[in-house]
Amino acid sequence: MDITTQRRVIRATESGWEDVEVEGYRPGAAVGVSRHTIIGQRKSKAEQPGPSQELRYFELQPGAVSRLEKHEHEHFVIVKRGLGYAVIEETLTEIGPNDVVYVAPLELHQFVNRGSEPFGFYCFVSADRDFSQEPTQEEAARIMASPAGKAARPFAVPPSKKNT
Amino acid sequence: MDITTQRRVIRATESGWEDVEVEGYRPGAAVGVSRHTIIGQRKSKAEQPGPSQELRYFELQPGAVSRLEKHEHEHFVIVKRGLGYAVIEETLTEIGPNDVVYVAPLELHQFVNRGSEPFGFYCFVSADRDFSQEPTQEEAARIMASPAGKAARPFAVPPSKKNT
Repeated sequence: MDITTQRRVIRATESGWEDVEVEGYRPGAAVGVSRHTIIGQRKSKAEQPGPSQELRYFELQPGAVSRLEKHEHEHFVIVKRGLGYAVIEETLTEIGPNDVVYVAPLELHQFVNRGSEPFGFYCFVSADRDFSQEPTQEEAARIMASPAGKAARPFAVPPSKKNT
Repeated sequence: MDITTQRRVIRATESGWEDVEVEGYRPGAAVGVSRHTIIGQRKSKAEQPGPSQELRYFELQPGAVSRLEKHEHEHFVIVKRGLGYAVIEETLTEIGPNDVVYVAPLELHQFVNRGSEPFGFYCFVSADRDFSQEPTQEEAARIMASPAGKAARPFAVPPSKKNT
């Protein structure tokens, strides 16, 4: 995708955005998580054509979670609907519509649906970004022994296929 | 602001976000435009500490517009509330809640409230970004002679004070 083929206006529909295919979180991975890639796509080098950032929308069904993971790239999250928890390292925060979350480089993080409706959030990331890292056994134990352990689920989602 | 002082969760309130001061669009400039800087702040060099991107929320009162301008940095916009027009070069698009807009480098653009309620949108930009450029007289005339001329207002907002 280069700048000329990137659409300028992506219209919302009742269930997503026009001409944005709904994907699974990662193929064959988590159940109950859908992903809409609204702007941009992953680059292997920053110099490649196309938007510098990628805007995704994730929706977690009741009971679903994102992967507990860390990476060098930052997350900028805006909650669109529903109720969730943000796990960021050892902190646990209840979040809801219009709350905003910043995840700094290499902070372990996880998003958890804590409600009975879908929990959906926008997530901005750099198009040129590193792949996610699983927590070590020691890190997972540390999170589970902390206040975040109330909601964190370190092994709920299979490891990344390195495709997002 | 460095990474340690950047808050991780910024909670929504009825009228904005906790501990986010509501600013004017630019001091002494446009009337009817409020700005909330939710994450990050402008950097003069990418290497400076703090988030790599800035997340702002702008709200335009009925009749209000953003500045018609262009710059090297990209805009990633999500409409939160209300009804507007996106002017991007010579195109005019009606936008509303959850619609997403991408503005590529150096595209002239303007956001216009076309409704009777506030029109509010998130705007995500690089923290390390260039300053806005006014359209030339020739560019303004070209936009006004195009389909975008129906809503564009090239000189509605005073020139940038180079502070955003």
